Amino acid sequence: MNPVLPGDLSRAFTGLRLRTTPDEIAAFVSDESSLVGDPPLVVVSPRTVPEVQQAMRVATEHRLPVVPRGAGTGLSGGACAVSGSVLLDLSRMTTITELDPQARLAVVEAGVVNADVSTAAAQYGLMYAPDPSSWESSTIGGNIATNAGGLRCARYGATRASVLGLDVVLSDGRLLSTGGRTVKRSAGYDLTQLFIGSEGTLGVVVGATLRLLPLPPPQLTALATFPDVKSAALAAAALVATTSPTLVELMDELVVSALDQARGTGFGPSVGSVLVLQVDDAPAAQASISTAMAVGNAIDVAVTSDQGEAAELLNIRRATFAALQRLGPLLLEDVCVPVTHLAAMVSAVAEIGAAHGVRTCTVAHAADGNLHPVIVRDGHTRAEEAAADAIFRQAQALGGTVSGEHGIGRLKRHWLETELGEVALDIQRNIKQTLDPLGLLNPGAVIRASAASLPPGHRE
Amino acid sequence: MNPVLPGDLSRAFTGLRLRTTPDEIAAFVSDESSLVGDPPLVVVSPRTVPEVQQAMRVATEHRLPVVPRGAGTGLSGGACAVSGSVLLDLSRMTTITELDPQARLAVVEAGVVNADVSTAAAQYGLMYAPDPSSWESSTIGGNIATNAGGLRCARYGATRASVLGLDVVLSDGRLLSTGGRTVKRSAGYDLTQLFIGSEGTLGVVVGATLRLLPLPPPQLTALATFPDVKSAALAAAALVATTSPTLVELMDELVVSALDQARGTGFGPSVGSVLVLQVDDAPAAQASISTAMAVGNAIDVAVTSDQGEAAELLNIRRATFAALQRLGPLLLEDVCVPVTHLAAMVSAVAEIGAAHGVRTCTVAHAADGNLHPVIVRDGHTRAEEAAADAIFRQAQALGGTVSGEHGIGRLKRHWLETELGEVALDIQRNIKQTLDPLGLLNPGAVIRASAASLPPGHRE
Repeated sequence: MNPVLPGDLSRAFTGLRLRTTPDEIAAFVSDESSLVGDPPLVVVSPRTVPEVQQAMRVATEHRLPVVPRGAGTGLSGGACAVSGSVLLDLSRMTTITELDPQARLAVVEAGVVNADVSTAAAQYGLMYAPDPSSWESSTIGGNIATNAGGLRCARYGATRASVLGLDVVLSDGRLLSTGGRTVKRSAGYDLTQLFIGSEGTLGVVVGATLRLLPLPPPQLTALATFPDVKSAALAAAALVATTSPTLVELMDELVVSALDQARGTGFGPSVGSVLVLQVDDAPAAQASISTAMAVGNAIDVAVTSDQGEAAELLNIRRATFAALQRLGPLLLEDVCVPVTHLAAMVSAVAEIGAAHGVRTCTVAHAADGNLHPVIVRDGHTRAEEAAADAIFRQAQALGGTVSGEHGIGRLKRHWLETELGEVALDIQRNIKQTLDPLGLLNPGAVIRASAASLPPGHRE
Repeated sequence: MNPVLPGDLSRAFTGLRLRTTPDEIAAFVSDESSLVGDPPLVVVSPRTVPEVQQAMRVATEHRLPVVPRGAGTGLSGGACAVSGSVLLDLSRMTTITELDPQARLAVVEAGVVNADVSTAAAQYGLMYAPDPSSWESSTIGGNIATNAGGLRCARYGATRASVLGLDVVLSDGRLLSTGGRTVKRSAGYDLTQLFIGSEGTLGVVVGATLRLLPLPPPQLTALATFPDVKSAALAAAALVATTSPTLVELMDELVVSALDQARGTGFGPSVGSVLVLQVDDAPAAQASISTAMAVGNAIDVAVTSDQGEAAELLNIRRATFAALQRLGPLLLEDVCVPVTHLAAMVSAVAEIGAAHGVRTCTVAHAADGNLHPVIVRDGHTRAEEAAADAIFRQAQALGGTVSGEHGIGRLKRHWLETELGEVALDIQRNIKQTLDPLGLLNPGAVIRASAASLPPGHRE
C-alpha cells in the first residue's frame, strides 16, 4: 500500500511502479519549456501495455486527470503535470520489438529514444528520418505526440510522414490499433494521423510501427555566407525550387556573431546570415547550389563531399543554441510560415525584439519556412512575453502557424484558438469530446475542453 | 420550379443547377467500379462554395442523403448514387484559384482535374506529385476523398502527402477550413488528414491547398525481365533498400503475354515478369539498379537516360490495362501488403485464380507493396466474387489491407470491418457520428452507420 494515496486507489494501482513523495515527483512537474506545472498526485511508470491499460482504467474510474509523458523534453508545456493528476511516465517502455530491414520498418514501444531507433537501423543502411534536435533524449512517443520535426524534414517530412501504425490506450483503457505495416492504405479514416500531434489529449500512444528509409546517397554539404537574411532566404528559396535538399538551415546576424564569440568561427561583421545545407552529390544538385547561392549574392560558398568536413559544417549549426546560451537563458520559440515569407518573418522577429527592448535572433529550417525565434531572457518577463505574443501574431498574419514542430502544449492554446477560428475549434472540441468524454486526458493541453467535460473539481 | 421535386424542396434549391429526369441522372448512378447504384432524387451541380453550403443545408433540413462526386472514376463504388439522394456533382468547380511557384503551392476547387494542376505547375518546373492512372480525368476532390495513389507514390507518397489544407462543407452547411499554407504544422488535431481518405462521409471537400514539388532531376529509366515474379520482387526489394526510386512497376506472366499479344513487345515465354523503374540519374542510383537487378537474376536489363526511350519503356506499363481488356471485361482490384510479402501475394493471386477457375493477373506498384490484382471476367460472377474475397483475405492475412489507393467505397465495407477490428471500428463510427450525426453523408460508404443515425426510411 502506498502511504500517500487513499487505500482504494492504492489497491487499484497494485502492481504498478508508483512514486508519490515530493522528491520522487519533482522531476515530473515541468518539461523543458518555461512552464512550471503542479505536483501530480502520483507518478505511474508502467512497463507494459496492460499496465498502461490498468492505469487508465483506474484514472477513469476515479476521475483523475492523466498526463502522459516521455522524456520531458517538450518545449510547449504539454508534459507538465497538473494538480492531482496521474503522471503517466512512459520512459520505461523502451523495447524495440522488431526491426525488419527488408520490410524497412521498426515496431517500438513509446519510450524508445529516437536515436536508439536510428542506431539500430543504421546497421542495415537505413534510418528513421525524423531528427528533432532532442533526438538523443526524446522518445518516439513524445515525437509522435508533438509531430516532431527536425533538420531532415526538408526532404523527408515531419514525424507524421514516418509512422505507419500506432497502438493507443484509450481513456477507458481499451487498446486501439491503427494503421499497420503497409506504406499505403486507403481503408477508413486515418486514425494514425489523427493521434499524431494530439499531444496525449485523445489517447496514450504506447507503441508505433515506424517507416525506415535508406540512408541518403552521398551528400554535398555547403556553408554559404550572405550580407543579410533576405539574401540568404532568397538563396534558400531558389534552392528548393530546383532540387530537394536534405536540409537547409538558416542563421541570422546575432546567431552568427554568437558563434564567432563562442566558437571562433570568424565570420566577422560583414556576414549577416549563414546557410548550411545538404543536397545529393549529383551534377544537377551541384548546379542547383551554384545557381541558388548566386541568386542570393552569397559572399562565400564552401562546398564539400568529404564526410569529415561536412560534419564540421553541420556542427556549426548544431552549436548555435550552446553559443546563444552564453548570452543568457533562452526562450526558444517555433513558428512556421509559407516559405516565401521566411525573410519577412526573420525581419519581423528582429523588429519585434527592438520594439519591445528584447534581444531576439532566429535559427530556421529554411526549406520549410519553420523558424525558431529565440528570445534571450534578461528578467523582463512581461516584455519578453509581449514580444513572443507579437511574434506569434505576425506568423499568423503571414498565413503561418504558432507551431511548426513543437506542438501547442499548455503554452500556446490561446493562440491556437485564434488560429483555428470558430468552426475548426468546434470540430476539434467535438473530436476531443468523442475520444475523451470525461476530459481526463492531458487536460489543459492543446484544446480547452468544454466546461461540461472537465473532471470534477477542475476548472480552467 | 422543378417539376419532379416537391415544391418546398424545389424552392429551397432555387438558384442551383438541378437535374432530375432519368436521362439526365443516368450518368451519375454508377462509377467505374462494378457496382450499379440507384437513381438519385436530384443531381445538384454547384459552381461555388455557397452553393454547396446551400445544398447541404437543404439536404440536412429535409433529411436527404448526399453523395458527393467528382469525375466518377472511382473503382470502389464510393460515388454511386443511393436511392432518393442528392447527388452532389462537384465537377463544375474547376477553378485553379492560385498557383504560387515561389511558395510551391496551388489552391484549387474540388472539381479541378488532376492533370490540369500538373500542367499548370509544369511551366514553373514544378509538379503535383500524386499521379493516379485516372489523372487525366479524375478530380482533386475525388483524389482527396480516396487518398489516391499512383506510380510516383514510391517516392512522393499518396495524395495525403501533398495536401496542405482543405475547405470542407460540413453536414450542417458550415464551412470548415483545415491546415493552411505551411508545409509544417503541429497545431491541434490534423483535420486535413482526417478528411483525406474519408470518401465524402465526414464532409464535402470543396477546395484544397496542394503542395507542389520540383520536377524530379534527370532520370534513368530501366526495363528488366525476369524468369518469374519472385525474382522480380526480390530485385524490387533490393532496389528500394538502397535508393529511393521514383517508380517501380511490376507485371506478372499473364500481363507480359497480354502485352506480347496486344503490342508485339516480344518478351516471349521465357519472361515470367517485367519491372519498369526510374531512379535519379546519379552514379549511386545507377549502381543500385545493377546490384538490385543482379539480386533478382534478371534475364535482361535495358537502361536509358534518353527521354524518348524512357517514354517508350513507361508506355509499356501504361498499355497494360488496354492489353488486358482484349481478354475480356476486367475486375480491377487494389490491395497492399508489406513489401516483403509482394512476391507471396502475387503468387497467391495466381493460386486463388486457379482454385476458383478464374483468370487472374497482377500489376503492382512494387516499391509500395501495392498490388492491382485483375480478374478477367467471363460471366462466372460467383466464382469471380469468391476469388476476390479470397484475395482480400489473403492480403489481410499477410498483414496488409484491402485498399492501398482506391478506397473502401460501397464494395469493400465488409472487409474493412474485419480489417479494423472491434475497437477501431467503434472509434471510426464515433467519429462519423460526431461529424455527421444524421448519417446523411454518403451513406453506405466506408463505415456502416449505427442504426440510430440512419436517415428515416434508409436501412442497410
